Order: sequence, then structure tokens, then C-alpha cells
Amino acid sequence: MQTFTIEKPDHTIRKALEDKINDLAKPKGSLGMLEELALQMGLIQQTLTPGLRKPVNVIYSADHGIADEGVSKSPKEVTRQVIHNFLNGGAGVCFLARQHGFELKIVDSEVDFDFPPVPQLIDRKIRKGTRNFRYEAAMTGAEMEQALRAGADVVEACYRNGSNVISFGEMGIGNTAASSMWMTCLTDIPLIECVGAGSGLDRDGVNHKYRILQASLDNYPGSREVTEVMRYFGGYEMVMAVGGMLKAAERKMVILIDGFIMTNCILAASRLYPEVLPYCIFGHCGDEAGHKWLLEVLQARPVLHLGLRLGEGSGAICTYPIVDSAVRMFNEMHTFSQATVTKYF
Amino acid sequence: MQTFTIEKPDHTIRKALEDKINDLAKPKGSLGMLEELALQMGLIQQTLTPGLRKPVNVIYSADHGIADEGVSKSPKEVTRQVIHNFLNGGAGVCFLARQHGFELKIVDSEVDFDFPPVPQLIDRKIRKGTRNFRYEAAMTGAEMEQALRAGADVVEACYRNGSNVISFGEMGIGNTAASSMWMTCLTDIPLIECVGAGSGLDRDGVNHKYRILQASLDNYPGSREVTEVMRYFGGYEMVMAVGGMLKAAERKMVILIDGFIMTNCILAASRLYPEVLPYCIFGHCGDEAGHKWLLEVLQARPVLHLGLRLGEGSGAICTYPIVDSAVRMFNEMHTFSQATVTKYF
Repeated sequence: MQTFTIEKPDHTIRKALEDKINDLAKPKGSLGMLEELALQMGLIQQTLTPGLRKPVNVIYSADHGIADEGVSKSPKEVTRQVIHNFLNGGAGVCFLARQHGFELKIVDSEVDFDFPPVPQLIDRKIRKGTRNFRYEAAMTGAEMEQALRAGADVVEACYRNGSNVISFGEMGIGNTAASSMWMTCLTDIPLIECVGAGSGLDRDGVNHKYRILQASLDNYPGSREVTEVMRYFGGYEMVMAVGGMLKAAERKMVILIDGFIMTNCILAASRLYPEVLPYCIFGHCGDEAGHKWLLEVLQARPVLHLGLRLGEGSGAICTYPIVDSAVRMFNEMHTFSQATVTKYF
Repeated sequence: MQTFTIEKPDHTIRKALEDKINDLAKPKGSLGMLEELALQMGLIQQTLTPGLRKPVNVIYSADHGIADEGVSKSPKEVTRQVIHNFLNGGAGVCFLARQHGFELKIVDSEVDFDFPPVPQLIDRKIRKGTRNFRYEAAMTGAEMEQALRAGADVVEACYRNGSNVISFGEMGIGNTAASSMWMTCLTDIPLIECVGAGSGLDRDGVNHKYRILQASLDNYPGSREVTEVMRYFGGYEMVMAVGGMLKAAERKMVILIDGFIMTNCILAASRLYPEVLPYCIFGHCGDEAGHKWLLEVLQARPVLHLGLRLGEGSGAICTYPIVDSAVRMFNEMHTFSQATVTKYF
């Protein structure tokens, strides 16, 4: 299997970072989460003057066989339609990317549609959608390998282009269903707690989705081993995100984690390589049922609580200005002695 | 007393605003708080294409007689020192203002120091600090009038300069103490729930602060009438903020509300003119004990929870990019028909 070499940030620099933060002319701790983020940035980048360069949001997009079971409010065609809207600049993530200076990388991971060649669409299509995990494994071992590698390749290109901060998003009708399966298998939280409304199911819809997923789980022949769970339930966009996250950590990039689906991906990634977590900033606790439990399992405290459930990396990108503030605090704020303010603690 | 003419936003446009938000190509409600903020912006500005112009952060600064009782961790000299740091661009609020394009307006409301004339410091000094409310009223009725007017004047100048969005901050050793008195008198929440660590008191310090404030409350001869509470406990910077907030609402500006102290000011302002509240976006729930109860009283749901307790308007300014995102969503995102995405709800 594709391997990654991920180093935990060296904590030798920690004391110097804390001293610098505490010497800024403010009541100790009074910039709350900005101080925590500044410390994390300093550890990741191993410097007292961290910086953010060329932010990128990678959206892996895919179709899911399980969508045939009516587990989503949205018809499958919406996947490709929204990708067109990404390319036309009109989707939810687009205005956020423009606002915060993110480059958007749209990856066709497995969409069930033949796109004409478009330079802005990165073609890493493996297959036209996963198989339906109600009855069989979503992908083969070889396909999963290919997806991990493809996800990592996209990130490697961003790194080589000079980016040091990256967020991940997803587009794929059916992917909250796949995520619920990852979550229940990897955390042992009962499936019922892991199933939510996705793009807007009503109560009956959620009940139907739960029944389909419970039947799929009952039918699942595999173990709770992480690669087996990823392979059986898919989708390709999620496996690619796992590969992308691991590559980003290997390259010591700051990783902004989005909502329910991407949190499942970092959970899986961290089961493979626990050292990925110190590189992650959890952006947002979304509205999908189960997301907050998932964050608890990861002992993650998200920066924002905006009730978003759009996906696409939207919650992660919204977090960017807060991380930027943390960096600016570190680099721009005067110390007590520079400011000639009495240090009163 | 200074009067204000504040109109509640006309809700005739509400249906059109909601229709526009629901017609954007996304699952209904999936942009959560951004959708709520967009609606509020549209109501305030009475348009389907709201916009943010020339954001300003006004910091009223002051000294407090009550500081003589040792209710703050910080010595009084810190007020003027931090003002110098504002003017030199090195304070906490400065990097945030630069990041988000805010003009900073620093107002000398009552600092106990003779500043040399500096163009960036707006001199509206009424007195060198309030009287000590442990024993007597912080200010006279005439002084309070003058402060309300001065606060409003600063905002009027921002409005005439083309600003339509404003945040307020404060600098003044002792002002969490004054705020606790406003809070307990205006909400009937017991004083003990209203007293916190301010700039960093330990448990003994908080206990001492509480005892001093309880003695002040026992000694208070006045009623719970809002202007009487404002006058007796001060400070000038807080009364100026009340005047500023009311003027901003009169001018239909968007008001970004900061932490504990500014939330007390909007509470007082809303007791005078309840119509001020629809113009307010509550930016941040801070770390000061009592802030969350105060937000509950106002039925306010803050945008951010970053654990800040710096004041200066820092939490309000951090909220700006989220409000900006809401506006951009409204103006830049494609509708279902523009995007040719199947409207599946």
C-alpha cells in the first residue's frame, strides 16, 4: 500500500513559542483561540514567524452506488451539475475562495458523467461511481490504492507550487451515507447516531437512509480494519481525501478540516498515521448529526460553529481568516517592552 | 436628554430576501448562519444586494475611579499605555483592523492623562476619569449627557464619511467592574454571576472585586432605571458607546457587537431604544463570566466563540469576514436556474 513519511512536529521549540505569545502586550491568554492556533502554526512550521502561503481548497468529487437506494434528497445528476457550477464560479465554495484568496482544485475522482476536457477540472477518474455497498464492496483493493495515490498526487502538486496551507472538500451525492458507515465502523458509535439529513432529508427520509445503511452493515462481511472499511464503503472522493491529507502532513502543510465528511476522512487518515493530527486545524462543527460526536472522538475543538452543511470545504475556508489572525498576532503585535506597557502578570 | 430617531427595519422586503436566499444553488439552509446574516443585512439595508462599506472600529477609552479599590489586575497606567500602543499600531486590535480593512478611531473619553495633541486621537475628554462609585456617582447628569452626545458625534462623522458598518471597543482599566454593575442592575441577575476575572484576576482577586462591588451596590441610592444606572456606575467610555450605538442604528448602519463590556452597552442602549437591536450582529461570546448570560437575556446568538477577552472590539472585528461572506453569498452565488442545477426541494 501507498506509504507516507509523516513526522510529528518537534516540540523543542514550544517553550520559545509560548514565551513569545505571553510576551505580547495583552493580558495573558486574552486572545484565546488565536493564541492556540499561533502555537500550533509555530510548531508545524518550526519557526517563531509562521506564515500562510498560497492557500488551496481541493474538492474531490464522485458518485456513489448507494445513491441508487434513495439515501439522498438529491438526485445523482446534481453531482455533475454542481461541478459545472464550481467551474463557472457560481457555487457556494467559489465566493468563499475568492474572498479568502484560495485557489480551487476540482478533481473528478469518479463522477458518473463524461466531462469534456476542461483545463480547470483535474481528471483522476477511476471509475464511473462506486459499486453499491448495500450488496458489494464499493471498490477493489487496486482501485483504493489508485485513489489514495491520486489524492496524494494532487496535494503534492500544490506543495510544489508553493502552498503551505490546504483545505479539502467534497462533492458527491450519497457521501454522507458512506461517511456514516466509516464513522460507525471506526468509532463503534451506534449507526443511528451517525446518520443525518445530508442535503436535506426529512424524518422519513432519514429513517429510510438508516434502514438501508443498517442492512448494508448487517451484510458487511469485513472487519473494522480501517483500509477494509474505506474500501468496502467508499467513495473514491473520500479515499482520495485521505491520501491528500496524509501527503499534506508529510509535506508539513497546515490542513484545514471541513465538515462531517472530511472529518471522517481525517479520522480514517489518523488511524493509519496518528502523526497526521498535529497538522490539522478543525474548522467547523456543522449541522450533520454525528459530526460533534466525531469531533469528540478526535478530541478536536472546532474553530467555528456556523451551522453550515454544504460541504465543498466551505467551513474550512471560513476558518482561514481566523488562522490568518493568529499568524498576524504572532508577527505584528508588539511585546510589552516594545509597547512600553507595564507587564502586570 | 439626547434623543435618537431609530426606525425598525421594514419587513415588507423579507419575503423577497428569503426567496432569493432559497433560490441560490445549495441545499436549503445549508449555509446556516451565513443565510441568517444575509437576511439581516438585506433587512437593514432594504435591498436584495446588500454591501459593506468602509468598516470602522471605534474605541472609546477611559479611566475609572473604582480602579482605586484594586478591582483590576492591571494598574491604571495601563489605560494610557495601551492607547499609545493603539496609536503605534502594535496593539491586539491593530493587526485585526489591518487584516480586515477597518479604520480605527481612538477616542479619549476620560483618560486620566494629558496626551500631547495627536491627529489620530480624538479628544472628547470630559474629565480625568470617573468618580469612585464605591462612594459616589461616577458622573453628573450633565457629564452623562455630554458623553452620550460625544459618542454619537464620532459615529455621525463615520457615517458622513461613507461607512455603513461599525464596531465598538473599549479600553479602560476597571471597566469590567462597571459593566458588572450595569448587568446586575439592568437584568436582576445576582451580582455574583456578573463578576469575572477581567484582565486576569485570580480567585482571590475576583473575590475581592466581588466584595467591593457588593458594597457599592449596597451603598447605591438610585433606582434600576437605565440612565440612573449608567450615570452612577459609569464609565464615560461605556456611555459614549451607548450614544454611538444609538446613532449608528439611527443611521441604519450594521453594528458589530464585541464582548462583555460592549454587550452591556447594547443592553443599556436597547433599554432606551429597543429598535436598536435589529441593527446588531453579536460577534463573539467571550470568556468573561456573565457574558453568556447577558447574551441570553438579549436572546442573541453570537457568531464566534473564540475565547477572547481582550476587548478593544477584537471579537467584533473577527466577525467581519463572516458577515462579508454572507453578503458575498447573496451577491455572487448563482441561483438554481443560472447554475442549471436540479432544484430538489
